[in-house]
Amino acid sequence: MNDAPRTFDIETFYQSLVEHGLIVPTGIRGGYGRSAVFEDILNRFNDLVSRTAADDGAQWFTFPPIVPRTLIEKVGYMDNFPQLSGSVHSFCGDEAVAKEISRRIHAGERWEDLLDITEVMLTPAACYPVYPMFSGLLPQGGRLVTVLNWVYRHEPSDEPTRLQSFRMREFIRVGTPDEVVAWRNQWLDRGLALLGSLGLPVASDVASDPFFGRGGRFMAASQKDQRLKFEILCPVISQEKPTAICSFNWHQDHFSSAFGIRSADQQMASTACLGFGLERVTLALLKHHGLDPKTWPAEVRAQLWG
Amino acid sequence: MNDAPRTFDIETFYQSLVEHGLIVPTGIRGGYGRSAVFEDILNRFNDLVSRTAADDGAQWFTFPPIVPRTLIEKVGYMDNFPQLSGSVHSFCGDEAVAKEISRRIHAGERWEDLLDITEVMLTPAACYPVYPMFSGLLPQGGRLVTVLNWVYRHEPSDEPTRLQSFRMREFIRVGTPDEVVAWRNQWLDRGLALLGSLGLPVASDVASDPFFGRGGRFMAASQKDQRLKFEILCPVISQEKPTAICSFNWHQDHFSSAFGIRSADQQMASTACLGFGLERVTLALLKHHGLDPKTWPAEVRAQLWG
Repeated sequence: MNDAPRTFDIETFYQSLVEHGLIVPTGIRGGYGRSAVFEDILNRFNDLVSRTAADDGAQWFTFPPIVPRTLIEKVGYMDNFPQLSGSVHSFCGDEAVAKEISRRIHAGERWEDLLDITEVMLTPAACYPVYPMFSGLLPQGGRLVTVLNWVYRHEPSDEPTRLQSFRMREFIRVGTPDEVVAWRNQWLDRGLALLGSLGLPVASDVASDPFFGRGGRFMAASQKDQRLKFEILCPVISQEKPTAICSFNWHQDHFSSAFGIRSADQQMASTACLGFGLERVTLALLKHHGLDPKTWPAEVRAQLWG
Repeated sequence: MNDAPRTFDIETFYQSLVEHGLIVPTGIRGGYGRSAVFEDILNRFNDLVSRTAADDGAQWFTFPPIVPRTLIEKVGYMDNFPQLSGSVHSFCGDEAVAKEISRRIHAGERWEDLLDITEVMLTPAACYPVYPMFSGLLPQGGRLVTVLNWVYRHEPSDEPTRLQSFRMREFIRVGTPDEVVAWRNQWLDRGLALLGSLGLPVASDVASDPFFGRGGRFMAASQKDQRLKFEILCPVISQEKPTAICSFNWHQDHFSSAFGIRSADQQMASTACLGFGLERVTLALLKHHGLDPKTWPAEVRAQLWG
C-alpha cells in the first residue's frame, strides 16, 4: 500500500471541511471547532440512535468530562493505555510561586513543574464513570445505561477523524455473561442496519484496543483471539484502512471485579459497552454524501431530519 | 453572619438532590453525574435562551473542552487565575517509564513526575476559543457568536452549585466599544426578564472575577470601579450570599489586543461576553420550585416545556 494518496486525501478532506465552514482550526491538532451545520448532523444522528433504542429502557446519565484519578488507577488504564491518558494538573502554591509562573510564561520558559496533580483525569471513554454506579448486587436482568460525553485521547493528528477530544454516545450493559453477550450481538446487527440505512458502506470486524508497547501487542492479540472487541468500519480517509465509527467491547469481569458488581444470581457480573463515535459518523456522512447536507439523498435526510 | 445554617443548608440540599436521583456522586467534589431529569431542565433552559436570542443572528460554534496552552499563556490566564487552571499532562515515554508508572500505581506511590505537558489545557470559560477567530478586520457592525461548552475550574467543593466541571451557554460580541456596551446592557435587562419569568427572585449587581493573591485584590477592585463585570444573582444556597447564575464581562481591548482584532473603522475592537451557568440555573429552579419538575408552577413549565 502506498502512503502518498492517503496523505493527500487527509489534507484535501481537512481543507474541504475548513473551506466549507464545517470545521474551524484552533491550533490544536485534533481539536478543531465544529460549525452549526456539523453539529446539526451530529445531534440528528444522536437522536436517531436514541429513537432506535427507545424501547430498551436505558437510563440516561450525564457526567462531566473528568473522572477521579483513583478510577483510572483502579481499572488499569495507565497499565494499558498510558500514551492516551490526560492527567489534570493545577496550581496550588503561594504568591511567590504564582509570580514565578508568570515570569516564566512571559520569558517563554516552561512552567509545568510548578503545578501539582489534581484528583481528576480526563475521561478516556464515556462509559468509565458508569461502572462504579453498578457496585453491589444487580436487579434480575441486570441494567442498561446510556451516556454521551466528551472523551480525551492524547494522539495529536491532522487526520480529521483522529481527534484528541470528541464525543461518544455509549450504551453500557451489565448482567450475566449470557445477557451481556446476547445484547452485544443484537446491537452489532442493529448498528450495521442503522448506519447502513444512512447510505454508509459499513462492515463489522473483530478488533483490538491500542494497548501500549510490546506487552500490549500480546494483549491486543489475545483480545482478538477471544473476540472481545468488534468495530463497525466505514471508509472515510482511505479504502484500505476504513475508520471505526462504532465499537463494541465485552469486558467480561474486568470492571465487575474492580467494583464488586454481582448479577442477581450472586455471580460475578459481566459488562459490555458500545459506542458511536459521533464526530466520525458525522465525517463519514459528509464524506459519502457531500459537504452540504441539503443535497444529501432524500432517504438519508428523511432518516435524520424527517 | 453565622456560617452554621449555611453549611447545614449545603449538606441538606446536596443530600436531597442525591436522594431524589437528580445527581449521582462520583467521588469528585464538584464533579457529580446528572440524571435525565436534571439534564432535561438544563436543556430546556438552554433552548429557551436560544429562542430568546433567535433574531440576534448569532453564529453557533462548538469547541472541544480543551484549548491550546499558548492561548492560556497569551491571554494572561495564569497571571490572573492560576489557582483555577487545568493543565493536561500525558505520558510520552518509553516502555521502561511505562513499567515504572504501573509499578508506582500498584504500590500506591505518586507518578505524576513521569508525565509530560501536552499542548492543551482545559477550557476555563466557554468563550476562550472564540476570540482568536475574530483576528483581523471585523465587518461593519461587528460579530456575534454563541457557544455551549464544558469548562473546568479547580475549586473542589461540596457546595452543589460550585462545580469543577460545568456547562456555560455564552454569547460573545465583538465590535466598537459603543456597540459592545449597548449589547451588554440590552442583555442585562433581557437576562433579568428571562430568569424572572421562570419565577426566580433575581437581581443584578456589579461584580469582580476571582483574581489570585494580593495583586488580585487590586485587580478585582479596579474591575468593580470600572463596572466591567455584572452578575445576575439568585439565592440558592443562602439568602445572604446569592449565587451568580449569569455573568457579563466587558473586556475592553484585552482580547482584541492579544489577537489583533480591529473594528470596521480600523480601531482596536472591544469584546464582551455573557454566560448562563446552566447547572446553576437548573439548581436554582430545583431549589425554588421543588425537586420534581412535574409539580412546578404551570407558567414556569409552559416557558420551558410549552
